[in-house]
Amino acid sequence: MSKAKKLESEVVERPDDITVTAPESHENFTNIKPFEYWNDKSGSDRNALVILNQSIEGCNLYKLWHNTELHVCADGGANRLYEYFNNDTNDNRSKYIPDYIVGDLDSLKDEVKNYYETKGSKVIPQITQYSTDFTKSMNIIQLYFFSSESRQSLDSVQDFNNGIAESLEKFNVPNNQAAIRIYILSGIGGRFDQTIHSISQLYILNESVPYLQLFFITTSDVIFLLKKGKNYVSYPSKSTFHDKSSVPTCGLLPLGNNEVILSTYGLKYDVTNWPSEMLGNVSSSNGVSGVTGFIVDASDPIVMNIETSYAI
Amino acid sequence: MSKAKKLESEVVERPDDITVTAPESHENFTNIKPFEYWNDKSGSDRNALVILNQSIEGCNLYKLWHNTELHVCADGGANRLYEYFNNDTNDNRSKYIPDYIVGDLDSLKDEVKNYYETKGSKVIPQITQYSTDFTKSMNIIQLYFFSSESRQSLDSVQDFNNGIAESLEKFNVPNNQAAIRIYILSGIGGRFDQTIHSISQLYILNESVPYLQLFFITTSDVIFLLKKGKNYVSYPSKSTFHDKSSVPTCGLLPLGNNEVILSTYGLKYDVTNWPSEMLGNVSSSNGVSGVTGFIVDASDPIVMNIETSYAI
Repeated sequence: MSKAKKLESEVVERPDDITVTAPESHENFTNIKPFEYWNDKSGSDRNALVILNQSIEGCNLYKLWHNTELHVCADGGANRLYEYFNNDTNDNRSKYIPDYIVGDLDSLKDEVKNYYETKGSKVIPQITQYSTDFTKSMNIIQLYFFSSESRQSLDSVQDFNNGIAESLEKFNVPNNQAAIRIYILSGIGGRFDQTIHSISQLYILNESVPYLQLFFITTSDVIFLLKKGKNYVSYPSKSTFHDKSSVPTCGLLPLGNNEVILSTYGLKYDVTNWPSEMLGNVSSSNGVSGVTGFIVDASDPIVMNIETSYAI
Repeated sequence: MSKAKKLESEVVERPDDITVTAPESHENFTNIKPFEYWNDKSGSDRNALVILNQSIEGCNLYKLWHNTELHVCADGGANRLYEYFNNDTNDNRSKYIPDYIVGDLDSLKDEVKNYYETKGSKVIPQITQYSTDFTKSMNIIQLYFFSSESRQSLDSVQDFNNGIAESLEKFNVPNNQAAIRIYILSGIGGRFDQTIHSISQLYILNESVPYLQLFFITTSDVIFLLKKGKNYVSYPSKSTFHDKSSVPTCGLLPLGNNEVILSTYGLKYDVTNWPSEMLGNVSSSNGVSGVTGFIVDASDPIVMNIETSYAI
């Protein structure tokens, strides 16, 4: 297996298991729990599943679906959901009906549109080419969770060009909302421009709508953004997300056009004041050592991936 | 289908098919031919196939194999090649024997190692953790193609820690070599840190070993780097790489730490002096309109992907 480039002076190799204490509550840090969706739905229901128009074959749809409140398909993402049940003999297709299907709808198949409309999905055309179906899905999620009035506005969208974005502007949603967790299937791992568009949105939404917490789920890993400053990534145990390796693979990926200075505690190869950038050091093929969590201090937001054995 | 964010003022929508004249021979430009591997091997034999340790299921291995001279597996990449033939009843496994298997070999299965050694593969352990199996493969390729002496040096590697890199240093290969085309299977689309490591190497090798031309092949697209300056991307016809769409999807992806100013001619959505960066504009879900080629002028190197229907 490939290993991260490790600079002797700034890298320490850890044992497979180390205990990392959570930061003190008075410290300023962001707690990220990437694997909440493996737990039964409980507590907050401010979470959503989004399906984009790339293959979802091999993805663990059921767990994600039942642990999320709102289900949105972006245009041809509805085709992917529909086709997921092509070989299913238990009529599961009729049990997994998205709440909304949104986009310019140039990919949505008539058969799929008719099926889901009959079953109660709201299909909302938004044909503007100046935003993507991904962005249109994020707008729906914000309106759905903000207030009963904004949620109701989704029942009567009149402007099929860009009405949802304009409605969102009208409601003027403040940024100090409670977090909304959004799990996204098929945003990463298919066509590469779609993958990079997803990553770009991860950075852009972190600035413009910071209360949206995005988690991209692929057949091999979970991908999310660490915030600027101290991040505490936590989980009940490593077996929550991996049952085949004591040190699940992970990476810290500086895709935001800035060099990021990293200090970590709880990875297999921990770094201190380590400059990371695409034309220099990238911490790939690293591993998770912390038994219930680890800490990443970052001078700027940075993408992280953690391998999971449960996606497929 | 999602569409790129298009800024009206700087973006022109083209017809599905437009004819783009190649730059004049006296102009300074880079000609990139991403789909040469679909043609029968002819002319230059300075090309190689590299298989990394991620799934190659669904990849069109045969075409790639027969149109390349040298075949290298990076560590567990050999397992992937071996397993590719698991359900094959024609003993094709024995016809696709890699020339070299290199890496720290912590992933290579004994059964696979024994099989390929018996069939003539050279298995070269390089256990240093300060470079990746990807880099070790690139080093082998450079030694193989430089001179008969450097090629022979691969028969008698003594230093199993980092001997190949040291040998490469000794031969002091100049950078004004004829291009070597390298096709890489499974470098992109699997675990996300592996994907980004691959992209990082695309940028780094462009600076350090510019005569290596890398093409990452996934099940949905081909991914490569455009050089700083004028690039002419050409092909016999669009049907060379896509038989299901008259405007195959493509993207221009600014992953190299810099904002890139783009001017294009021959894309569905052509741009002029368009600033592109991860926290701003990213041209995703664009399309190929040029019937035999298109032009991209870039202020810095930038990653491009083009969708192909023939990968699987």
